[in-house]
Amino acid sequence: MKFFSDNTATACPEILAALSDVNRGRAKAYGDDEWTRRLDAVLGEHFGKEVRAFCVVTGTAANSLSIATLTPPYGAIFAHEEAHIVRDECGAPEFFSNGARIVLIPGADAKLTADSLTAAIENNPATVHTVQPTTVSLTQATEFGTAYRPDEIASVTEVARRHKLKVHMDGARFANALAFLGCAPADVTWRAGVDVLSFGATKNGALAAEAVVFFDLALVRDFELRRKRAGHLISKSRFVAAQLLSYVETGVWKRNAARANGYAQKIGAAAAEALIYPVEANEVFLRLGANGKQRLRAAGFEFYDWGSERSGEARVVVSWDQPEDEVLALCRELSRM
Amino acid sequence: MKFFSDNTATACPEILAALSDVNRGRAKAYGDDEWTRRLDAVLGEHFGKEVRAFCVVTGTAANSLSIATLTPPYGAIFAHEEAHIVRDECGAPEFFSNGARIVLIPGADAKLTADSLTAAIENNPATVHTVQPTTVSLTQATEFGTAYRPDEIASVTEVARRHKLKVHMDGARFANALAFLGCAPADVTWRAGVDVLSFGATKNGALAAEAVVFFDLALVRDFELRRKRAGHLISKSRFVAAQLLSYVETGVWKRNAARANGYAQKIGAAAAEALIYPVEANEVFLRLGANGKQRLRAAGFEFYDWGSERSGEARVVVSWDQPEDEVLALCRELSRM
Amino acid sequence: MKFFSDNTATACPEILAALSDVNRGRAKAYGDDEWTRRLDAVLGEHFGKEVRAFCVVTGTAANSLSIATLTPPYGAIFAHEEAHIVRDECGAPEFFSNGARIVLIPGADAKLTADSLTAAIENNPATVHTVQPTTVSLTQATEFGTAYRPDEIASVTEVARRHKLKVHMDGARFANALAFLGCAPADVTWRAGVDVLSFGATKNGALAAEAVVFFDLALVRDFELRRKRAGHLISKSRFVAAQLLSYVETGVWKRNAARANGYAQKIGAAAAEALIYPVEANEVFLRLGANGKQRLRAAGFEFYDWGSERSGEARVVVSWDQPEDEVLALCRELSRM
Amino acid sequence: MKFFSDNTATACPEILAALSDVNRGRAKAYGDDEWTRRLDAVLGEHFGKEVRAFCVVTGTAANSLSIATLTPPYGAIFAHEEAHIVRDECGAPEFFSNGARIVLIPGADAKLTADSLTAAIENNPATVHTVQPTTVSLTQATEFGTAYRPDEIASVTEVARRHKLKVHMDGARFANALAFLGCAPADVTWRAGVDVLSFGATKNGALAAEAVVFFDLALVRDFELRRKRAGHLISKSRFVAAQLLSYVETGVWKRNAARANGYAQKIGAAAAEALIYPVEANEVFLRLGANGKQRLRAAGFEFYDWGSERSGEARVVVSWDQPEDEVLALCRELSRM
Repeated sequence: MKFFSDNTATACPEILAALSDVNRGRAKAYGDDEWTRRLDAVLGEHFGKEVRAFCVVTGTAANSLSIATLTPPYGAIFAHEEAHIVRDECGAPEFFSNGARIVLIPGADAKLTADSLTAAIENNPATVHTVQPTTVSLTQATEFGTAYRPDEIASVTEVARRHKLKVHMDGARFANALAFLGCAPADVTWRAGVDVLSFGATKNGALAAEAVVFFDLALVRDFELRRKRAGHLISKSRFVAAQLLSYVETGVWKRNAARANGYAQKIGAAAAEALIYPVEANEVFLRLGANGKQRLRAAGFEFYDWGSERSGEARVVVSWDQPEDEVLALCRELSRM
Repeated sequence: MKFFSDNTATACPEILAALSDVNRGRAKAYGDDEWTRRLDAVLGEHFGKEVRAFCVVTGTAANSLSIATLTPPYGAIFAHEEAHIVRDECGAPEFFSNGARIVLIPGADAKLTADSLTAAIENNPATVHTVQPTTVSLTQATEFGTAYRPDEIASVTEVARRHKLKVHMDGARFANALAFLGCAPADVTWRAGVDVLSFGATKNGALAAEAVVFFDLALVRDFELRRKRAGHLISKSRFVAAQLLSYVETGVWKRNAARANGYAQKIGAAAAEALIYPVEANEVFLRLGANGKQRLRAAGFEFYDWGSERSGEARVVVSWDQPEDEVLALCRELSRM
Repeated sequence: MKFFSDNTATACPEILAALSDVNRGRAKAYGDDEWTRRLDAVLGEHFGKEVRAFCVVTGTAANSLSIATLTPPYGAIFAHEEAHIVRDECGAPEFFSNGARIVLIPGADAKLTADSLTAAIENNPATVHTVQPTTVSLTQATEFGTAYRPDEIASVTEVARRHKLKVHMDGARFANALAFLGCAPADVTWRAGVDVLSFGATKNGALAAEAVVFFDLALVRDFELRRKRAGHLISKSRFVAAQLLSYVETGVWKRNAARANGYAQKIGAAAAEALIYPVEANEVFLRLGANGKQRLRAAGFEFYDWGSERSGEARVVVSWDQPEDEVLALCRELSRM
Repeated sequence: MKFFSDNTATACPEILAALSDVNRGRAKAYGDDEWTRRLDAVLGEHFGKEVRAFCVVTGTAANSLSIATLTPPYGAIFAHEEAHIVRDECGAPEFFSNGARIVLIPGADAKLTADSLTAAIENNPATVHTVQPTTVSLTQATEFGTAYRPDEIASVTEVARRHKLKVHMDGARFANALAFLGCAPADVTWRAGVDVLSFGATKNGALAAEAVVFFDLALVRDFELRRKRAGHLISKSRFVAAQLLSYVETGVWKRNAARANGYAQKIGAAAAEALIYPVEANEVFLRLGANGKQRLRAAGFEFYDWGSERSGEARVVVSWDQPEDEVLALCRELSRM
């Protein structure tokens, strides 16, 4: 019973079917096909605004390519110290940006705030001797499974705007955040001041598909060249586009996220006193102690330690396709602890 | 009737079926799954030698990541002046290697020879003021649709070895070369002195799958870190591994390539006097004149100009799934010209 | 009366004279001259060990080139959060290393300790998803004007060695540290586990001259190529070598440093209660309050704020050529506050 | 008797004296001193136009930093195949630009022409799959010791302008070209369409000083940050600025260049039938045969082979300080051959 991560999941039937659907006839490569060409319109409608959307196949590529487009080599990228781009991408932002620096910001619930961003900017004054503040990266949902409210985002991006920083959002679990918040996609993106979004689908039911969605259209040519140069322009683009179209048009993005979130809530409720962070998306962080973790594992539940092995803390992630009986079994086990 | 490129093709049924087959249960991400773990053994058997094989999803990534592993930033990569890494990857080798230089070598049939490589090395002496010769990249089949014979490769790699250069092979159309040559995969790779191979499957029936195959095992940790850092470590790795396993294990690599090659031979035979290069893989290069090209296009055949629009030359690529009637129609049209 | 920094200083007469001395006859360029060739021997004797020494003209180049030689692009460099490479080099280490990351370590007196380094390494476990710990950079004297004792360095480098990290030392004010400690150059470098030293002379009397001194000789070819490639191989190398030879051979390194240190001690004594850090080299950090700073400035003393303008703190740096009357005047003014 | 290169030369007395002149008092570092601040005005007057001028200490840095400011990582830089940036800088343009590509153009006298540039641009069409033409780099005087006439430059830059390329000029031997042409500095730079000039002084009498002169002022902030980040912002900037001020204001740039050029003419006249290229600056290229070269060397003349050792060709470079008797002796020896 694997609760390691939502990228252990299968692909959902709607998306697998979409691959078969587009698998007919010769189609021009590199995005000049009918499906890829529809992406802008479909995601534009999803977000209620004209956008330019590009396919890639990993979140790391989506994040780093868009950050590189926003950031010169001597730029500083402000991000939470626990952000995925900091902890889990082997320095990809540095690679794609040709050596920009990520400035780490601490803060509760893995969130930036107007105050913490302001303090970080002030602590990194721009002279010819220093890296130049240019970029902010927010994660929605955060690495701690929490979701920024629209006004939380807006207050951060207002600081960014005042200091002429561009704003990137890592939305690897964007659907889970949205399912929790119940707001429109626009409310936590462009309306709240986001310039570019990594719009994730892989963790929530796709095989390998993420869109980079530009709300600020001026930057896209640079992005396109960087994407090609980085080997992330897929030749048979229709197979990635099909995943994203299906993900948005069938509404599976919402169904899958709601299902996973709902089970996470159940698990959180079963272990309310052990919760480290509020459960808002599909991740549950639990203070179980070494014995608790061992007992769970002995009962067949697999999950990652949170922090080190000795920490006594666990991260439980619910996939969109997590069998209900696994969730119920876990709840039973937790409620007994 | 699209003859633009073999990446206009669909995915073949065997490979699409493999995606469904592996779509069951939660599996650890990033390659720690039963399918990805089998790749080394399956490709090792294919090549008759212990190998380490890694999944990526584009040929550009396969080429550039492996070249970067072989080449320091101040290195020189020797390649034919018409190689894909030179003409069609937007500077990806330079990006991944952090600024190495590709030294261009001319030569018939888009091939390097022992002589042309020797001349290029001698024209680029290694002092502290120059980029340092470190790497050779061969393309099999070449950009002109020709195939290196085993002894042709060996004579180039012998020069490389004498000058302590590592050898990369771009095998985006490796299967087509092999189907033409009728030799063992080993004969044109490690036995002939190749250190790393970009083993392509996408053009020949996969959705998006290439393996980087290391015959020199010492280099793999560096490769793994570079791949992750470049956003090319796929989280749901089983879906890429499944394509490659199916490609090799079902023998579809050979069937698809043989089919496309066979049709290319037919087309070449129908236009024997217009041939620019010998037809050895699935590409046919034709000297048709502006009128000839116009006439073909008017008849519904789509293809790219070879060289500029004014060149009077055309490139016709046969996909694995090219309908036979399209091929026959093209042959008829060509034989009338 | 400028106490901004020791790089406001003039060049000392011994070194200026050396420039004239070597200004005779045609000499081969790029270091193949009699003066540059003597550097290894002269610095080898200074350090009591065979070394390879290379000229550059800025501390940033010395630091970043040597760090790049120790660090792959996916490497992590551990450094104090106030280190010059972090705060004052516009991301040079990231540029030269092609995107490595500096991991920031807090700590008293701008020093790393065995414990703080161990904690940082443990907080950055090496998996394929993370930057790989490879390098430590120490600053001697530190950015807070303190000097590591030999055993302090050894205890840090022992941790480094255990984790297979290489050790760089930024010695922009190496002479000042040594003049304070009264030990041999070897005691705080190779004998204490340092692999490469940025041996500064510019701040202490040269025009523009720093040596990169390798105690680990295996790495030098890579360094030489990186130096050339970065535009830091000076063609008329004798003029940089002459500065370094004079600096070491005349003993001016010690005289200049001792003079500046002595005055810093005087200033520190005159404002003992305002001291933020112990005075060990040629820098004095003072808690003066906004009024105090204003009063000093009104009296003609120029210096930088420490922290922000509002901090109430000041940094006073004594140059090797600081006129004694300026120092005495400052002492008088401070003792009245 | 060394005729290896003009960077074997000494520093000229005027420039050495200037170092002593500025060696008084504490001055703010990093260019915020009275001498560095005068550079814009002095070079602006020299060029008859408002400019921004920056000090660096090597030609490689001057070239690569300015090229990097003009060129995105996916850019293509058009240059003659024998240009210094191609043959002698260990890939510095690739390093500073984070992986741009130099596209090599052949041509007589090491010159680009409107036709050869046009052909190169047409052979490198800009699609998302290719490096993007962005930059041209001209060398004045060229690597073959020839000088572009104003109209030759203008015809190249007109092609550049039409294709929206920026134009860099490598002026490591700019003074020698100017002394030969007898025109105003403006005539071969901004008036002829050059955007940025590497204005060399080192080879012609300085110790280590080059100015990067921007005629297009929009680009300078990017340059300043790149310069710092590359370790090329000299702390005691006055010592570099002083060299450049003296070089321009005393007229020594012209005297030194005229002297060296004059001797080169003498040598060329003495070996008129052996000349490979016309003698226009301070370099003489001679077809002497293996025996001829051996005989010259036996007579005490030192110089580099041109091409390989076996080529039978020699490069003779006259330094600004070449003793007249060495030149006359060489002429005698050559006239006897």
